[in-house]
Parts: sequence; C-alpha cells; structure tokens
Amino acid sequence: MEFAEELGFLKEQVLFKGKIDAGRRFRNVVIAGMGGSGIVGKIFSEIYTEKPVTLIDGYSVPAHLSRDTLFVAVSYSGNTEETIKAAERAMQKGCRVVTISSGGELGDYGDQNIHIPRSDLQPRSAIGYMLMPFMEGFGLVDAADIKEAHKVVESLDHNNQECFAHAKRISRNKKIPVVYGAYPFSSVAYRWKTQFNENAKVIAYCSSFPELNHNDTMALAETYRKDEFYIMVFDSDRKEIKKRIAITSRLTQTKFNFIEFKGKSLAARLFYMIHYGDYLSYHLGKMRGVDPTDVRLIEELKKAL
Amino acid sequence: MEFAEELGFLKEQVLFKGKIDAGRRFRNVVIAGMGGSGIVGKIFSEIYTEKPVTLIDGYSVPAHLSRDTLFVAVSYSGNTEETIKAAERAMQKGCRVVTISSGGELGDYGDQNIHIPRSDLQPRSAIGYMLMPFMEGFGLVDAADIKEAHKVVESLDHNNQECFAHAKRISRNKKIPVVYGAYPFSSVAYRWKTQFNENAKVIAYCSSFPELNHNDTMALAETYRKDEFYIMVFDSDRKEIKKRIAITSRLTQTKFNFIEFKGKSLAARLFYMIHYGDYLSYHLGKMRGVDPTDVRLIEELKKAL
Repeated sequence: MEFAEELGFLKEQVLFKGKIDAGRRFRNVVIAGMGGSGIVGKIFSEIYTEKPVTLIDGYSVPAHLSRDTLFVAVSYSGNTEETIKAAERAMQKGCRVVTISSGGELGDYGDQNIHIPRSDLQPRSAIGYMLMPFMEGFGLVDAADIKEAHKVVESLDHNNQECFAHAKRISRNKKIPVVYGAYPFSSVAYRWKTQFNENAKVIAYCSSFPELNHNDTMALAETYRKDEFYIMVFDSDRKEIKKRIAITSRLTQTKFNFIEFKGKSLAARLFYMIHYGDYLSYHLGKMRGVDPTDVRLIEELKKAL
Repeated sequence: MEFAEELGFLKEQVLFKGKIDAGRRFRNVVIAGMGGSGIVGKIFSEIYTEKPVTLIDGYSVPAHLSRDTLFVAVSYSGNTEETIKAAERAMQKGCRVVTISSGGELGDYGDQNIHIPRSDLQPRSAIGYMLMPFMEGFGLVDAADIKEAHKVVESLDHNNQECFAHAKRISRNKKIPVVYGAYPFSSVAYRWKTQFNENAKVIAYCSSFPELNHNDTMALAETYRKDEFYIMVFDSDRKEIKKRIAITSRLTQTKFNFIEFKGKSLAARLFYMIHYGDYLSYHLGKMRGVDPTDVRLIEELKKAL
C-alpha cells in the first residue's frame, strides 16, 4: 500500500469499535507503550483526568501497581520488548491487564485483548485503532463525535494544499520544525514531532503553552539560527492561551505559523490535528526525497539489541 | 550577586531540611508548578513511584482531586498565576495542600507551607530548596546521600574545564544543543534544555532513551543540518540503556558527547548532573555575550497577561 493511502486509512479507524473494559473497580490507570504506540497513552492522559494515569515508556514499572490498577499495554505489533516486560510485571502484581495489539506476543495476553484487525500498517499509521478503545472505553466520545471526527479526517488528504505549502516552506530552506501545542493537545504536538522524525527524517521539536513561556521564550527572542526554525502553533480557543500566544509572538518578534483546528468535538479536533501533521510530515519527506515508510534502522536496532 | 556565585549556592541548598509532611493518608500526589519551579515535580515523579503522581503545568486541574490527594504547589516566588489558581482549586476539593515558596501569595497558603529562606535567587537557581522537601518528605535520601550530594556539587564550579569545553564547541559553530537522558534522569535532560533556553538564550531540545529509539533515530541518521546539532548524552549504568546508546550512535553514525555522572547515590548523581548543566549553559551564555540572568521578556509577558 502506498503510504499516502495508508495515512488516509485513519478515517476508517475512527469507526473502530474496540473498547477497553475497565473492569469492576480501579483506582488508577497505568499505560505502557513506546513510540507510535505510546503516543495514545500521552493523548489519553491529557484528556482523561477522572483517575490518576501513569505512563511507562521504558523498562521500569511503578512500584504502585496493584489489584486496584487498570494496566493497558499498547503495542501495534504486539512484540515491543519494553511493553511486553512491563505487561508481565503488571500480571504478577495482580493488575487488570488489557492489551491492544494486532497480534504478536501480546495478542493473547492479559485479561482482555483488543485485537486490531489489520497488521500491515506502520504502527504510527494505526493510531486510530489504538486510541479509539480508550475513547470508547472511558466514555470520551458519542456517536455524533465519531461521525464528526470521521468527516473532518475525510476532508483532509494528501492533496491538501495547506499541508503542502507548510512542507514546501520548511523544505525550501531546510528549516527545523518546531511545534507548539497547548492543553488538551500538547501530546498532539509531540505526535507531530515524532512524525517529522519518522516520515520526513528530520530533527524536530515540540513544546506547549503555557509551560514554554517559562523557558523557550527568552530563547525565541535571542537565539542564534532563529531563521532556521519553522515554528508552527496550534491555534487555541481558550482565551488565556490565545492571549499568551499573541503576546509571545509580539515580545519575541517571532513569526508563528498558525495551524487551525477543524470540528467542534474534542474527538474531531484531535483526529483532525493528528491527521494534518501526518500529511505535512509526509510531504516534507517526499520533498526531501526520503522514503516516509523507511524505518530500517529502528528494525536493525531491535535486532542488534 | 554574580550569577556564577548564585549557581554555586546549590551546594548549600542540598542541606535544606524543609520536609513535606504528607499527612496521615493519601492515595495519590498531584504537583503544580511551572518552568524553573515545575521541574522539581518532573524529577520527583520519575524517582518516586509508590503512589501515582500527576503533574500540572497549566491552568487545568485533574478531575480526580479529592480528600485522598496530597497536593503540592511549587512556586519559588509564590506568585505564579497558573500555580495559585491550581492550589485554590485543590483547597476547594479538600486536598491536603502543601506549598513550597519563598513568600508571595502562596507563602501563607495551604495546610503546610515550606518556607524557602532566600527570595533573592532566580527560581531556576533555587532547585535544591524546592527539590529537597520532596526527597526528605518521601524518604528518598539519608544523611550519607546528602553528604555525598553536597560533596559532588561542591566539586563542580564555574571553573570546571569540561563544562567550559562543551560550551566552547557549541558556541564556536553556533550549534543547537540536544540533550539525551534516560530513566531516572530524563527530567534532568529537560532541566538542561530549559537552562540552555534561559541562561544561554538558545533554542535547545531533549529526549530520552529508550523512547527516542522509536522516533528520533531515523532523523539522526538522515536529517539535514546534522552537523549543526551538538548532541549530549548522559552516560548510563544500566546495561540495556548503555547498549542502546552505543548501537544508536553506530547505526546512525552520530557523534555523541557523553556526560559522565559523579557519585554513587541517586541524590548525588541527580544534583551533580543538574549542576553540570547549570555551568555548561552559563558558559554558553557568557560566550554568546548574553546576560544569563536576563528574563526580562518573561517578566514583561507576565505583566501583559
């Protein structure tokens, strides 16, 4: 499958009915996942705050795992070394363990396995399959939200001229992408960073308002190489954040390239912004002449370990 | 006080006996703090895993705040807008509220106020005052650890030639600092990033092993402007991380500039690495001819809000 087509497949994933069954009682949630699979934990922990959520992106598991913990292991392949180890520890500690995977070792592991029906995608192109079970399981979407999300994702494809234009401006001067988000979409800014890394093979970085006002701000004003950064800022509909963004741009005399949301519901805005970054980074990769799907080195590294 | 002297004052702070009193029972910890004050929550949440820890770095507070929550508000000045708002919400929700500040609005707020005895430092230079109450309060240090931490911090000052040499190599070619940490020091890599921002006024970024093996790795191999990044990697004594670092460097053909820890205890290693980044970024600022203490724009921004 051509990668643009693979990306476009996100609109089907939004309709995925996989659903985490949290069990009868839990006091906290722990989510293990790395890279393209781990991002869904980051997104979920930003929008769900009914119980404490702890993320694991490595080998270590928190000491507080217990029978009161709902543990979710997310790995598209089902074979991620760090995530399997963490899930094993969670089982030993008596957690309720839910796995989300397309198969692999995690495919028949845990108290509940949410089976992703396709295993031929890049993990990062399967974000809908991995995120929807959280949205459905914790009541973060209803039928109308899903319909809207499907619609806005469908409205965006690899022919989108805005994504293309941003990529062009980045590519022409070999700029370093910088992505600034804000609650509840800080994790989406991180998703963009990782998509720039993997699809376009460029170093990129992200931060979020208002935290960045406490550090990046002085750098924005006085850094060397300032013209070599291409700063993208997710527009916000929160008054205090909007104001911060405007003041920061003015005081530091920095050009912000705004990215507008589409949609009303959280789900629609979330998936739209994710998808926008998919295409923007895809175009940048194409323009650079690199293969967006090539993750050969990551595979080599896994073998070498 | 000259800034180098202010930085050197960290060795006294390590001896600070402020101690969080967690109260009789709590099921989870929530910490609010921004920028130079917020970093202590990030560090604590990486090394303390006995209970779930949730961080707030903005206006929103989690829905799960309750009488079972120990809420810690950290603001050196005591006047941080976001943190005050969060602490007010926590009081309303019946949390046990502990504040750490040198005065300001938070100075007489909450069930316990840990009073920092000096208010004339930059917030980021008061990290010891803000971090020690967590280390003491949750039993993460003993007398021997503190003694060792004091010793290694004292061994490092603005005459350190290694810090100077790194800064020189960055400054000479206007390189963009990149800092790679690993558990339990990922948050220290973030601290370095923010110190580069504020002390040297340069854009910088950080990430951590093993997570970066799932995204940055492809970029390291094929990014444009590769020679313009100066990549610093905290050495690790964990076998699997050491191996990952070596393989990543080899496969991506990237030069890593290793930063070695000093000390045996977690506290010593932690404070040593924090302090190393303080001086490295300080020197870079000096070489660039910027004033490391200047945070005028951040002050202007606060006024404009």
